[in-house]
Amino acid sequence: MNRMDDILENVAIGAWVKAFSRAPGQANAPHESDAELIELPGDPEHLLAITIDTVAEEIHAGLYQEPYTMGWVTVMASLSDLAAVGADPLGMVVSVSAPLGKDSDLAESAGRGMEDACRSLGVFILGGDSNLTSEISLTGCSIGIVPKNAVLTRRGVQPGDAVFVTGRAGAGNALGLVRLSGLPDECFPESNYRPSARLAAGRALRGRATAAMDTSDGVLTTLDQLMRLNGHGFEIDCDWSMILSEDVLALCLAAEALSEASGWPGVVPIRLGTVQERAVITLALPSRRRVDIDMSSLRNLLDTSGGDLAFYLSEFKRIGGSWGLE
Amino acid sequence: MNRMDDILENVAIGAWVKAFSRAPGQANAPHESDAELIELPGDPEHLLAITIDTVAEEIHAGLYQEPYTMGWVTVMASLSDLAAVGADPLGMVVSVSAPLGKDSDLAESAGRGMEDACRSLGVFILGGDSNLTSEISLTGCSIGIVPKNAVLTRRGVQPGDAVFVTGRAGAGNALGLVRLSGLPDECFPESNYRPSARLAAGRALRGRATAAMDTSDGVLTTLDQLMRLNGHGFEIDCDWSMILSEDVLALCLAAEALSEASGWPGVVPIRLGTVQERAVITLALPSRRRVDIDMSSLRNLLDTSGGDLAFYLSEFKRIGGSWGLE
Repeated sequence: MNRMDDILENVAIGAWVKAFSRAPGQANAPHESDAELIELPGDPEHLLAITIDTVAEEIHAGLYQEPYTMGWVTVMASLSDLAAVGADPLGMVVSVSAPLGKDSDLAESAGRGMEDACRSLGVFILGGDSNLTSEISLTGCSIGIVPKNAVLTRRGVQPGDAVFVTGRAGAGNALGLVRLSGLPDECFPESNYRPSARLAAGRALRGRATAAMDTSDGVLTTLDQLMRLNGHGFEIDCDWSMILSEDVLALCLAAEALSEASGWPGVVPIRLGTVQERAVITLALPSRRRVDIDMSSLRNLLDTSGGDLAFYLSEFKRIGGSWGLE
Repeated sequence: MNRMDDILENVAIGAWVKAFSRAPGQANAPHESDAELIELPGDPEHLLAITIDTVAEEIHAGLYQEPYTMGWVTVMASLSDLAAVGADPLGMVVSVSAPLGKDSDLAESAGRGMEDACRSLGVFILGGDSNLTSEISLTGCSIGIVPKNAVLTRRGVQPGDAVFVTGRAGAGNALGLVRLSGLPDECFPESNYRPSARLAAGRALRGRATAAMDTSDGVLTTLDQLMRLNGHGFEIDCDWSMILSEDVLALCLAAEALSEASGWPGVVPIRLGTVQERAVITLALPSRRRVDIDMSSLRNLLDTSGGDLAFYLSEFKRIGGSWGLE
């Protein structure tokens, strides 16, 4: 129960990982941190953090339709992983695959999205690779430096820890809802979706939070992955009206009390709930009823629906209904 | 004449690069080195080298048909860029996009290709990302460390420099010929194509060669790019029977004489010719005739043929014929 391998994405990653030997100087095991952490021969005080992310599924599914968004998200998804380990970025490289030919419209708009995202956080793109393919696929790889004794990982969650997000969440879900439901774009224009990597929060929390994870895949998915890794669950009793809004934040767990947490420099944390011994996610509903939820069916839904949109939507509603969320 | 922008691939890269600000701590300008070079805050003696490469076009075109080859090449193409700047690798991350689902055959074979390539050079895959897409696309990103005062770049070519390859070339072209010509696979089985990144050669040549570049795109293409960057050409008067065989080597230029070069530890260089003042590539033919060649039409042929194989082949022959190579 609650195994990592109940999630098909973890299985897919595992199929690759099992072929690979473990690097001697690596500080993290698979899934244990948002970025890979490796020793630097000439700098014993720091670890090098490196992370790679491809934005392709979201483009093919029609979630991102504007090249500017595609570029922006490629940068932010990658830098969010650095934020979640508490690293100071050194720079990024990007690999861009697109049916370009001599038409450089995509390059111009997606390139501007990448550049604007980088400028907003003081990060630079160092270089990259470009390829001619029939489908758009954008890959970002970020590197950074983090003090060895203060690095944040996904491990370390303890019962009683308070759970925070470093900003409001839900913009990704809002955009997804508009695309799936056929609601008019004006309900949530794509230009509203401009997540920002929480680099300052990651820096402020290193050495303080007991664990952290990027919430790009959604808050509940993040909690579910943390639960499977740490063997402890969460009791989520926040006021959701305080949570929903922005996206891509580092989710932070800490033994400190909320009042103490509010004093962290550069972070305005929002309390989600508490870590519980029992490895299950418990939601406190507005009705004051408490419900234990199992995220695996939701997290696997993209794989199990095989691209059947009607099935995806009906299953999504059915699962929510079974949790009493109707 | 001989501008970087005569080559459509350079133009495509430029369309992206022009959107990006230059990083303050970066030691190379665009195109000037095989890997991006950036200062390390905690280690003033070294530069961090980082490079990203996607293997997709070669897979869609049918050049690589075995997943093992796809994985192997993804690793070697990336590490070759580290070799060409003389870096010691710290590790790699990979992003794998494929129409996988629950079928892990591709993951198993391509993963084994990646692992075997890494093991042959003592490098480790630190982690990565996996995506569900309709086309296979494999991206490798390598990081390494290189002494600041001995880094190799593509700049520094001087008239009179002797030009070497660090091993035999041509396996990529041989595989391409089999695929394009419809010759039976037995003429050059895909399993013969196992290029190896010249990491030891790169290390041995740092601080010695005046310039270096990875020849993954072919020896003449590499010379053409070096010519456009440096404003000097090459007179190639080698015995091609000594050159053709292996692939993916660092191409090295040096002021030292051949005899001196042979003394470089870990490198068995093969002499190609000499740098000439005039920015043109001159081939000495077996007939003792000398011919100046213009690589731009060949380098742009994939773009200009728009996937028309018959046109590609007839143009390829026509261009070769116009050089007297018939």
